[in-house]
Amino acid sequence: MTQPQQPQASQLPRRVKVVEVGPRDGLQNEKQLVPADVKIALVDQLSAAGFANVETTSFVSPKWVPQMADGAEVMAGIQRRPGTIYSVLTPNMRGFEGAVAAKADEVVIFGAASEAFSQRNINCSIEESIERFAPVARAAKDAGLRLRGSISCALGCPYQGEVPIASVVDVVKRMAALGCDEIDIADTIGVGTPTRTREVMEACARAFAIERLSGHFHDTYGQATANIYAALLSGISIFHSSVAGLGGCPYAKGATGNVATEDVLYLLHGLGIETGIDLEAVVRTGDFISKSIGRTNASRVGRAMLAKMQDAATAAA
Amino acid sequence: MTQPQQPQASQLPRRVKVVEVGPRDGLQNEKQLVPADVKIALVDQLSAAGFANVETTSFVSPKWVPQMADGAEVMAGIQRRPGTIYSVLTPNMRGFEGAVAAKADEVVIFGAASEAFSQRNINCSIEESIERFAPVARAAKDAGLRLRGSISCALGCPYQGEVPIASVVDVVKRMAALGCDEIDIADTIGVGTPTRTREVMEACARAFAIERLSGHFHDTYGQATANIYAALLSGISIFHSSVAGLGGCPYAKGATGNVATEDVLYLLHGLGIETGIDLEAVVRTGDFISKSIGRTNASRVGRAMLAKMQDAATAAA
Repeated sequence: MTQPQQPQASQLPRRVKVVEVGPRDGLQNEKQLVPADVKIALVDQLSAAGFANVETTSFVSPKWVPQMADGAEVMAGIQRRPGTIYSVLTPNMRGFEGAVAAKADEVVIFGAASEAFSQRNINCSIEESIERFAPVARAAKDAGLRLRGSISCALGCPYQGEVPIASVVDVVKRMAALGCDEIDIADTIGVGTPTRTREVMEACARAFAIERLSGHFHDTYGQATANIYAALLSGISIFHSSVAGLGGCPYAKGATGNVATEDVLYLLHGLGIETGIDLEAVVRTGDFISKSIGRTNASRVGRAMLAKMQDAATAAA
Repeated sequence: MTQPQQPQASQLPRRVKVVEVGPRDGLQNEKQLVPADVKIALVDQLSAAGFANVETTSFVSPKWVPQMADGAEVMAGIQRRPGTIYSVLTPNMRGFEGAVAAKADEVVIFGAASEAFSQRNINCSIEESIERFAPVARAAKDAGLRLRGSISCALGCPYQGEVPIASVVDVVKRMAALGCDEIDIADTIGVGTPTRTREVMEACARAFAIERLSGHFHDTYGQATANIYAALLSGISIFHSSVAGLGGCPYAKGATGNVATEDVLYLLHGLGIETGIDLEAVVRTGDFISKSIGRTNASRVGRAMLAKMQDAATAAA
């Protein structure tokens, strides 16, 4: 047993940006179609709770993703909070034009770090997939929109298993070359653990500015908060999460997907890190969306805090 | 944003002891009485999976804890695996005598780090509670039994909220004076976050040998794996967990309790740390006990791995 050198709490970032991805990445995995007015209420509650960035919808063929067919309606219906960045996914120029028409603040392009995943999911190589995004990236820069690049399977792949760190770094470089303002390192299937997380994050930080790298973790194997803590120790200061853990995991029935926003905020606030977000408001929003779509709230903080709120309400009655 | 100094993976302990507490700490919170033969099968599956230490039952008044009334029967029915430590809780001399008769390898005494919790839970001060355990501790040492001391509410209390680190260290010193071979630092209500975890663990390690301090974490706020990673970075190398997350949280209805063993093993193995435990066997045991008592499996790893095992079985059929 060796006793390690201690990193100090003061070495953690003082402020973290939490990007709420529930309305898009979360709801996209829900089988039942969620009405646009519910999505609009969800986005508005989230921006009111203090999120500076809400991933709101996709502009993608409704044949591929029927859940996101109402992207334009949702974008038109939300109350724009000044300063909030509303992001949308844009897989191609048609999607990009929809995003511009909808006045999106940021467009998101995506690629896998795993060759097997790229082939199985979008039927082309990683290189080809990045090339396909080049026109969208150029158009976004020309239009003065923020551009975000999302890299899936950065910590493991459902088809090929291990993903070399060099592959992740290679995609980071390609995304950087396209002009991405922010790049997401995503553990799409939640298989990562802290040491690997740190190795991947630190390797990516040698290829792209660390303050513009984000960590996108899934909790499928219960590792998300550990991985976020690890990433914080590596200097990462942007994280993605999904209110009430919306989403689930398409690769394992009944398993957990995106880490719940409430659990991430509890972690960050407990570490003394500022987020500008009101946790109690997010817990109420998690309750709202879980009840609206008849889904069990997958946030542990959500369940614990709601049980306490209910006890307090009963005691006061 | 500051970029911290990096602790290296090699600074983590190379080997960790995982103490399985499901049969006692987990089942104790289940409302329905679990038959002794199910408990016996559970303990036997756990020892066969490789746990070196299984918290098996309590010798406590059946009026207080009806679920543990069959302690003697369970201890008589299990197949003793050579080298495995079977621990039992002994609140008093009567319980101690039951433990000796049942050939327990280790007896466990307990106290709170929170004065409010001690008063509300056992109607006496922390100091009085420790004094009451002195005869049990002496008898255990005289009988050549291992003695473990468990300190609840070390990271927060449901009644008083914050618990001063000095209070935790004070109870550690008292437990050490009683001759405890191992001392548990327990986050009974799961409110801890990593920085606080490290501060508490490091303070306790200045009062007691770090290699005999253990971390007992609850996942009520989704922080357990993050806290375990933090404790590992502080040099802690013994952790408690409960298969399938048996137990729940008595302080918040529907909330999570003990961290699931499967999730802890996934973390440790992912960090390259040896445990000597077969994760797949534990996943099957988690499935067995969850089904036996009609409870949702609370382990994320359990749910994800069982879904995959089922898919593989379907594909093979």
